Amino acid sequence: MPVVVTNIERPDRGLVEALGRCGVATVHEAQGRTGLLAHRLRPIYLGARVAGPAITVSVPPGDNWMMHVAIEQLRDGDILVVAPTSPCDDGYFGDLLATSALARGCRGLVIDAGVRDVRDLTEMGFPVWSNTISAQGTVKATLGSVNVDIVCGNQRVRPGDIIVADDDGVCVVRREEAGDVLAKSHGREALEADVRPRFAAGELGIEMDGLRERLIAMGLRYL
Amino acid sequence: MPVVVTNIERPDRGLVEALGRCGVATVHEAQGRTGLLAHRLRPIYLGARVAGPAITVSVPPGDNWMMHVAIEQLRDGDILVVAPTSPCDDGYFGDLLATSALARGCRGLVIDAGVRDVRDLTEMGFPVWSNTISAQGTVKATLGSVNVDIVCGNQRVRPGDIIVADDDGVCVVRREEAGDVLAKSHGREALEADVRPRFAAGELGIEMDGLRERLIAMGLRYL
Amino acid sequence: MPVVVTNIERPDRGLVEALGRCGVATVHEAQGRTGLLAHRLRPIYLGARVAGPAITVSVPPGDNWMMHVAIEQLRDGDILVVAPTSPCDDGYFGDLLATSALARGCRGLVIDAGVRDVRDLTEMGFPVWSNTISAQGTVKATLGSVNVDIVCGNQRVRPGDIIVADDDGVCVVRREEAGDVLAKSHGREALEADVRPRFAAGELGIEMDGLRERLIAMGLRYL
Amino acid sequence: MPVVVTNIERPDRGLVEALGRCGVATVHEAQGRTGLLAHRLRPIYLGARVAGPAITVSVPPGDNWMMHVAIEQLRDGDILVVAPTSPCDDGYFGDLLATSALARGCRGLVIDAGVRDVRDLTEMGFPVWSNTISAQGTVKATLGSVNVDIVCGNQRVRPGDIIVADDDGVCVVRREEAGDVLAKSHGREALEADVRPRFAAGELGIEMDGLRERLIAMGLRYL
Amino acid sequence: MPVVVTNIERPDRGLVEALGRCGVATVHEAQGRTGLLAHRLRPIYLGARVAGPAITVSVPPGDNWMMHVAIEQLRDGDILVVAPTSPCDDGYFGDLLATSALARGCRGLVIDAGVRDVRDLTEMGFPVWSNTISAQGTVKATLGSVNVDIVCGNQRVRPGDIIVADDDGVCVVRREEAGDVLAKSHGREALEADVRPRFAAGELGIEMDGLRERLIAMGLRYL
Amino acid sequence: MPVVVTNIERPDRGLVEALGRCGVATVHEAQGRTGLLAHRLRPIYLGARVAGPAITVSVPPGDNWMMHVAIEQLRDGDILVVAPTSPCDDGYFGDLLATSALARGCRGLVIDAGVRDVRDLTEMGFPVWSNTISAQGTVKATLGSVNVDIVCGNQRVRPGDIIVADDDGVCVVRREEAGDVLAKSHGREALEADVRPRFAAGELGIEMDGLRERLIAMGLRYL
Repeated sequence: MPVVVTNIERPDRGLVEALGRCGVATVHEAQGRTGLLAHRLRPIYLGARVAGPAITVSVPPGDNWMMHVAIEQLRDGDILVVAPTSPCDDGYFGDLLATSALARGCRGLVIDAGVRDVRDLTEMGFPVWSNTISAQGTVKATLGSVNVDIVCGNQRVRPGDIIVADDDGVCVVRREEAGDVLAKSHGREALEADVRPRFAAGELGIEMDGLRERLIAMGLRYL
Repeated sequence: MPVVVTNIERPDRGLVEALGRCGVATVHEAQGRTGLLAHRLRPIYLGARVAGPAITVSVPPGDNWMMHVAIEQLRDGDILVVAPTSPCDDGYFGDLLATSALARGCRGLVIDAGVRDVRDLTEMGFPVWSNTISAQGTVKATLGSVNVDIVCGNQRVRPGDIIVADDDGVCVVRREEAGDVLAKSHGREALEADVRPRFAAGELGIEMDGLRERLIAMGLRYL
Repeated sequence: MPVVVTNIERPDRGLVEALGRCGVATVHEAQGRTGLLAHRLRPIYLGARVAGPAITVSVPPGDNWMMHVAIEQLRDGDILVVAPTSPCDDGYFGDLLATSALARGCRGLVIDAGVRDVRDLTEMGFPVWSNTISAQGTVKATLGSVNVDIVCGNQRVRPGDIIVADDDGVCVVRREEAGDVLAKSHGREALEADVRPRFAAGELGIEMDGLRERLIAMGLRYL
Repeated sequence: MPVVVTNIERPDRGLVEALGRCGVATVHEAQGRTGLLAHRLRPIYLGARVAGPAITVSVPPGDNWMMHVAIEQLRDGDILVVAPTSPCDDGYFGDLLATSALARGCRGLVIDAGVRDVRDLTEMGFPVWSNTISAQGTVKATLGSVNVDIVCGNQRVRPGDIIVADDDGVCVVRREEAGDVLAKSHGREALEADVRPRFAAGELGIEMDGLRERLIAMGLRYL
Repeated sequence: MPVVVTNIERPDRGLVEALGRCGVATVHEAQGRTGLLAHRLRPIYLGARVAGPAITVSVPPGDNWMMHVAIEQLRDGDILVVAPTSPCDDGYFGDLLATSALARGCRGLVIDAGVRDVRDLTEMGFPVWSNTISAQGTVKATLGSVNVDIVCGNQRVRPGDIIVADDDGVCVVRREEAGDVLAKSHGREALEADVRPRFAAGELGIEMDGLRERLIAMGLRYL
Repeated sequence: MPVVVTNIERPDRGLVEALGRCGVATVHEAQGRTGLLAHRLRPIYLGARVAGPAITVSVPPGDNWMMHVAIEQLRDGDILVVAPTSPCDDGYFGDLLATSALARGCRGLVIDAGVRDVRDLTEMGFPVWSNTISAQGTVKATLGSVNVDIVCGNQRVRPGDIIVADDDGVCVVRREEAGDVLAKSHGREALEADVRPRFAAGELGIEMDGLRERLIAMGLRYL
């Protein structure tokens, strides 16, 4: 049952970069408010903004053996996405694994568990989105799988799906929908670019698009 | 039932500023250790310190329509205080709404739910105290109310009550008690200003005010 | 029953400093992955790294009286370790107590409860690991004990045990095992110093120590 | 500051009984989906269904002194409603206090904290809605207040407001709105009595009231 | 985007019944310890044991409109499986919807949110596994989808997948793997039937299968 | 490092039985409100009341191998007390292990993790206090220890310490203090036996022991 899938499909690099520039909130809205990983996954430091194809890892609780196996599957630009098979807060990943991952071109880690050596990771500029910071060590005794479908942060992530992550959290985009999501993201950015200066100038959202009329029609009363 | 109250009373501006300078811990103690909002409301960035009258907003779960309505009610110096009618972590507020709120003179947001675009909000210097950071989008389908009594962070907040917020959290002061609370806050500051240098010089709290004698009388034993 | 033990044994200062330089993750691993306090204890600011003997304090919920008693027991280099007798998030400690503790040479506070005045504490450079930041005030009405065995963050801490704390969390080392743990920590550092440049050069962990062979033998399949 | 208000107004007994028969879900809906206490308040045994005016108690963390004070204020049919001033899980109430409360005609306890002696309470038929079951003892050292406005389970409760509680949780009804809420509750019951047999006979909600047409108009597609 | 898929494939009825008789723990082990929904999903009453194909429902927070739509898709023996698009504890389902679902032959509800009317549901014998019991009402304003892939309780559930639920929780079995999982479940039951009387007679697990020798070889010491 | 201590000291059987009859709340109070395990440990069924010496087990996350080792150490009347080395909710124990434990005379299980087969355990009358009910399976790959000091439910438990457990939770009594705690428990029971009928007859606690005078002296005001 434990497998490592070695030849996954990756999305177009240009699409990935472009989605990364849009950011999590925009991409999440552009795909119909879907794909956002649970907000318990927080960055260990602020300011990072990455995108890349997911190398997925399914790990047992308290056991990080498969992290070493997964690193071999990384190519330049990839993002590690890790989920334990039952909830676990242990520190699966630290500065040594980050050194190894960086050497393979890895852009970051998304893990629904814990990490450690966060000062070192910050100094190395290796971004991590995790649900916990914990020094709790793990063993190497039980197998898991690499590049299989996983559920991470309550979202299904398939190997090769695109991960977008920034200070607002983490979003997953299906590889085959990336082009469409990008187009919609750009549409949304255009809309916001139009509204922002109007808001800055004091115009009210409630006065746009017949909003006030709809509110009144639905029964809102001003006292 | 959904209403917007438009002519709320606001407290004296000087009182508000003075309370803001005292800070949350002092004000909370000065009013008898009451009024502190639940500590799950944390600032999205450290260092902000604000005070202002509350514009209150009651919102349905996953629906931020009333935020737009509330912004129209803001005047210079106000603080938005938002509570969902049942627990919800969605991102009700981002950089566009902040742009609009800032244009009205709003000093910050206190929300017992989520916010997003936190990098933009930080760059704009728009302070937010929220229970979550999440990019999860909301809809505009159901009404709520503006400037009604709400419970936010386990405290009752009335429109026009004074919100004081800093790195320690958020405190609410009743408008009609503001003068009294300020006087007591200043008294407390004076007391602390007296004790601080004595502590710094090595004097012990246990040697002040007969504290050790009371402890011994109550049964404390030194071994 | 409430007691203050005044003449606890403290560990060798040199050992303490050396353990502090190793850091939490290394020390925790060196003592067989034991001694780590629950990860809910987080630093109020990043970058601090301390070690010192524990002055332990058992406090009632919502009552910080014994904190004042404990400060008298502090000597240069000590760390306050505080646990309430039932879960409590109140802010037991602020800038005044920190001023007093600093005057006694205290290096920091570890508390399985709340703290306040975090901006002041940060400016003073007084590091705190707490489970909460809260301005909620406490009373002075009920006794507790100082320098007795406590359970803090799910770990037993005895007075005089060594506390090591950094951005990864907090670890406790038994005083009598400190020498042995230090030796093992140095051994672990040596090992990591050997592996790190090999990882940086692109060598894979899976190719070291017969790891791949063991994985295959246990049933891992590559597809 | 700590006070006991002795002459609170109580609602009409007939209204209270009638609301109790409607149950929590119906009453909560009838007053516009407001007034429901947080669902962390669960009954210690299933099957109880009570209603009565609230005797409110504000207690310090870990201190149940005011419970004894509150019992004196109970009259036949009242319900004790208790909230600590900061979150606390201790067991504030057990079989002795229940014996005393029962002797005063008390119908039950709603407490945003812990209770103990739950086997005895169950055998006595004294219903409790609490957030925790815990034997953790409390002290009698610090004052609180009885019959003041409190926030319990995230809802404001005033002395004399009507508490309705059953297996679904706890709801508060403003004394002055009780008649109106009862009328609406009966209206809702009538509606449900009409729909229930139609549902039982296989009729679909989606075929009633033009529901399917509205869904299609809003964009729902059947594949 | 919001869709209702009307012609899903269902698994063989005999397979479903047989899996239901095996129970959650056995089926979960038989498929390699996968498929278990998060343990926060608990039955509202003990003793129920059901199995059936999943009718999946994706609902917005605080909005149960799609529940009515989903009921039309139920056939005899089906189980409703519901997940909100962001975490929500509201009571999406009560006795009226249960009446309607029962009339369609529905065997139960699995919902990663709240339910209400639990006394009625228990009396009706309609089993529910939910993460919360809450009377909090919902609106009917926003669309969702029926019979699409969802993540519920941290597991992917596809329409027509087999749900097995009992006092231990909820497990999902892929429709196409049901035969294989059943065979393995029966194998496991046979094994347990062999071991149980030996355990009952006092034989020790540690004396079977060379377990003690392996433990000693790995370094376990008896003192 | 992983060890099994085989010849622990056990307390006097008569003392154990007598403490068990006092119950958790009384014993906890009698030893100065200490020793109560965290209330997250709840019984899987109500009505059980046991006492016995602790056989302690330290287990890795997701690995129940040492449970089998621990069962061999059980003698008639013992209670298994289990804590994982980092937080884990997996189902470490089910009907097979219970069958084996019962054959050794085990009276129950206290585990700061999960259990499964709860219907079987209930039918067998094997009481369990756990923090979770979960069918999630575990592996047998990593060693732990039996009969060493552990921290379970935030309390230190030593092998041979006395566990008292009932519907209110779990309490630990040091073996060497058992006689003293029993005497104090009986004293407390006598006191309660005196007060209970007086409460039942309508006498008020506030009128006993000068309570009202102390409250008034401390500043309580009646309005």
